[in-house]
Amino acid sequence: MNNTIKDKDLVLISTPKRRYITRVEKGKSFFTKQGVLKFNDIIGQEFGTKVDTHYVLKPSLNDFILYGLKRETQIIYPKESGQIILKLDLANGMKVFECGTGSGALSLFLARAIEPDGVLFTYEKEKVFYQNAKMNIENAGSGKNIKFFNHDIEKGIDEKDFDAAFVDLKEPHKYIEWLRTILKKGSVLGMLVPTTNQVSAILKKCEKHFFDIQIIEVLMREYIPNPTRLRPKDIMVGHTGYLVFAR
Amino acid sequence: MNNTIKDKDLVLISTPKRRYITRVEKGKSFFTKQGVLKFNDIIGQEFGTKVDTHYVLKPSLNDFILYGLKRETQIIYPKESGQIILKLDLANGMKVFECGTGSGALSLFLARAIEPDGVLFTYEKEKVFYQNAKMNIENAGSGKNIKFFNHDIEKGIDEKDFDAAFVDLKEPHKYIEWLRTILKKGSVLGMLVPTTNQVSAILKKCEKHFFDIQIIEVLMREYIPNPTRLRPKDIMVGHTGYLVFAR
Amino acid sequence: MNNTIKDKDLVLISTPKRRYITRVEKGKSFFTKQGVLKFNDIIGQEFGTKVDTHYVLKPSLNDFILYGLKRETQIIYPKESGQIILKLDLANGMKVFECGTGSGALSLFLARAIEPDGVLFTYEKEKVFYQNAKMNIENAGSGKNIKFFNHDIEKGIDEKDFDAAFVDLKEPHKYIEWLRTILKKGSVLGMLVPTTNQVSAILKKCEKHFFDIQIIEVLMREYIPNPTRLRPKDIMVGHTGYLVFAR
Amino acid sequence: MNNTIKDKDLVLISTPKRRYITRVEKGKSFFTKQGVLKFNDIIGQEFGTKVDTHYVLKPSLNDFILYGLKRETQIIYPKESGQIILKLDLANGMKVFECGTGSGALSLFLARAIEPDGVLFTYEKEKVFYQNAKMNIENAGSGKNIKFFNHDIEKGIDEKDFDAAFVDLKEPHKYIEWLRTILKKGSVLGMLVPTTNQVSAILKKCEKHFFDIQIIEVLMREYIPNPTRLRPKDIMVGHTGYLVFAR
Repeated sequence: MNNTIKDKDLVLISTPKRRYITRVEKGKSFFTKQGVLKFNDIIGQEFGTKVDTHYVLKPSLNDFILYGLKRETQIIYPKESGQIILKLDLANGMKVFECGTGSGALSLFLARAIEPDGVLFTYEKEKVFYQNAKMNIENAGSGKNIKFFNHDIEKGIDEKDFDAAFVDLKEPHKYIEWLRTILKKGSVLGMLVPTTNQVSAILKKCEKHFFDIQIIEVLMREYIPNPTRLRPKDIMVGHTGYLVFAR
Repeated sequence: MNNTIKDKDLVLISTPKRRYITRVEKGKSFFTKQGVLKFNDIIGQEFGTKVDTHYVLKPSLNDFILYGLKRETQIIYPKESGQIILKLDLANGMKVFECGTGSGALSLFLARAIEPDGVLFTYEKEKVFYQNAKMNIENAGSGKNIKFFNHDIEKGIDEKDFDAAFVDLKEPHKYIEWLRTILKKGSVLGMLVPTTNQVSAILKKCEKHFFDIQIIEVLMREYIPNPTRLRPKDIMVGHTGYLVFAR
Repeated sequence: MNNTIKDKDLVLISTPKRRYITRVEKGKSFFTKQGVLKFNDIIGQEFGTKVDTHYVLKPSLNDFILYGLKRETQIIYPKESGQIILKLDLANGMKVFECGTGSGALSLFLARAIEPDGVLFTYEKEKVFYQNAKMNIENAGSGKNIKFFNHDIEKGIDEKDFDAAFVDLKEPHKYIEWLRTILKKGSVLGMLVPTTNQVSAILKKCEKHFFDIQIIEVLMREYIPNPTRLRPKDIMVGHTGYLVFAR
Repeated sequence: MNNTIKDKDLVLISTPKRRYITRVEKGKSFFTKQGVLKFNDIIGQEFGTKVDTHYVLKPSLNDFILYGLKRETQIIYPKESGQIILKLDLANGMKVFECGTGSGALSLFLARAIEPDGVLFTYEKEKVFYQNAKMNIENAGSGKNIKFFNHDIEKGIDEKDFDAAFVDLKEPHKYIEWLRTILKKGSVLGMLVPTTNQVSAILKKCEKHFFDIQIIEVLMREYIPNPTRLRPKDIMVGHTGYLVFAR
């Protein structure tokens, strides 16, 4: 893969204090608290180049979601996204259902896991969220295999025969029965909910229409990278949500 | 994607008590404690079909690793694999380095995340592990984009310009400096080590040759899927290893 | 406190492989897989003495509960007991309510925290559990300040004006209103339940009759004591129960 | 125990927004953002009384440490204190060693667990910390069985034959050998350290002078008390320290 910084490329600018995601613009500059970075100085250089105190990196999708995504909703975090990709068993060529799109953070990961030949169909009923997610996906410069609908799934959808589905809605238990009709037999359905009461509501429905039900919680602990004083960070994320998977 | 069970397909047979991974063989049968499953009864059926008390499913890569992989070494578990794929920012078309291959569990996930156009170069110096991993990868029916070497990286390798690297060795700190020379500038290096002493040893080396160092631990808790008696399982995995990432 | 081993003392015999709790009997011996320990050889010695490969220690209450208690029920583990003592704010002289007694593990900790002047009133309706717990408490040689009843609290109790209460029952939410009548105003009520549904049921009742409600989960991770290969144990307890406290 | 509010009593004033610890002063008032609480209105009432939006409670030692203690140092938190009391096997009448005193948070718990007949000897070399801890212990109205020294243990101490010891110092491994000489044979030594490197340093020394070594980490997760939307809090404490115990 090409590693040269070009005009219009998305870059991660990393300073000792903060990180920024921006797009290279020939002839222009980027201002941080550490000083000024002239884009002309980095065009043609390799990613990973350091100019004064600014590292210029190729942003990972993870970086983009943490520093470049505009959030209109609670997003699904990387600690969950990694598990979702594995449990949905995503691979090139799959046809995947997602609802609701939210800010598009998970959509970008799902789409990448099935590219170039797979297609993600993602549905968001709120116009404001839809437009924001559309902008985020365009900014990421990724997600060419996403079909994006501003549509309420209550009204049904035209597609079916999905290889996998992920649902991030307030009341996913209402759609369990319907979801079975749009999935291929034996395919995996995933859901994320924040409360134990929602997990119970889902389980009541899943028992009839799905099997092989798994409920998991992912906790991630970060350490401070000091070789002679190695220790976890004082504060960690205690909860984002419960992941439920079923076939 | 095709959802019909054919001769020679890998299938996951799920009974209330246990799960098996096997290959369909026309004219033959599979014996479980629940009884006999005749392969002829399922050929031509859809995945997800139930015959008596046997569900016949398309095994996910996750299923294959848990129930179908022959282990000669400690494997990297799915709870870590999901994070590794995200942090290495894997996508179609990348050129990725892995060492050691071990039993091939992570290799299969890495290869899938970069297919169809990316290539995984994986190195294993122990002949026994190499042969076992080779067999596992063939059995998985996946990993066509893996280049597999029975080779000690101490002697150097012919490839360079990797987009990402993952190392699962006893003394990864010895290779940090060398790893930098085979990676493209700004690319991500990931490592897994079981002890805090190894993390400290890695950090001492990384400080000079890499930056943006992150150390994480992933904990996963499973719940018992009973809607009226929802609770986590009594026992959980307390530790597999520390993940270290650097650019 | 006296540190000399005497006849009839409870001792913890620690071998490299296993631990035993037994009572010293003059003239007799104790047999382990490591060999024979003659009690006459340790009478008059200090606790902490080593005879061949047998360490002879004064058993902590914790040791007694883990190695000496006969279990007829699921017990409350030390990781929770420590928090319970703190949250109930136990101190010498308090009058404390407990129900059900179960195997008596928590009773021993509660009684110790309020001795010598406080009294623990503990109620167990099942005769088998009551008798087993009585035996356990006698064996511990502790708990002289425990008043122990084989009684169903459904029928009411004679005591009131408790300084604190702890409840480990299947349906604690049924007793919330009544518990308020036996506690002094502003006193702390603690409960342990294994499921999230029970927590919800308790909260519905507590909202009316109590305030300052806290729900906590305690996770404990043990490390393998190797200075050059420091790492957590592979397996840990993932769940015992949810602790709920209210005033 | 008496439950009536008297002049000079320590009280916990709980408003929906915040909690305060103060001392009742006849004729005076306490001002919160919720309004004014006249002490004369609560003298003679029971603890647990509500005046307008102010609950007046008897502060637990836990409350005092969280809301009433003045901190000059990092304190030992209740999630660890509970385990320390259990592992040191504290009971009425014991003679206990502590160093350094810090802000006195743990001292108050240790002293309470061994009262009325036990004595805590606590040593703090920094004058500022010593004076602050002294004030905290006086304010708590507890800890009558604490003997408090502004003394550097490097110079040795006059006492010996302790039943248990707890050490919270930067380099506890330097004192392991000496600690053995002041403890009764077979007694428990506890330590708290924040880094894995310190744990390794301790283990190297303990191997020679102690046995039955245990290293534990306590994680506590709190839930939001909403019966229909039960879920853990978003953020939790990820690390305070590693507890090491040895005999």
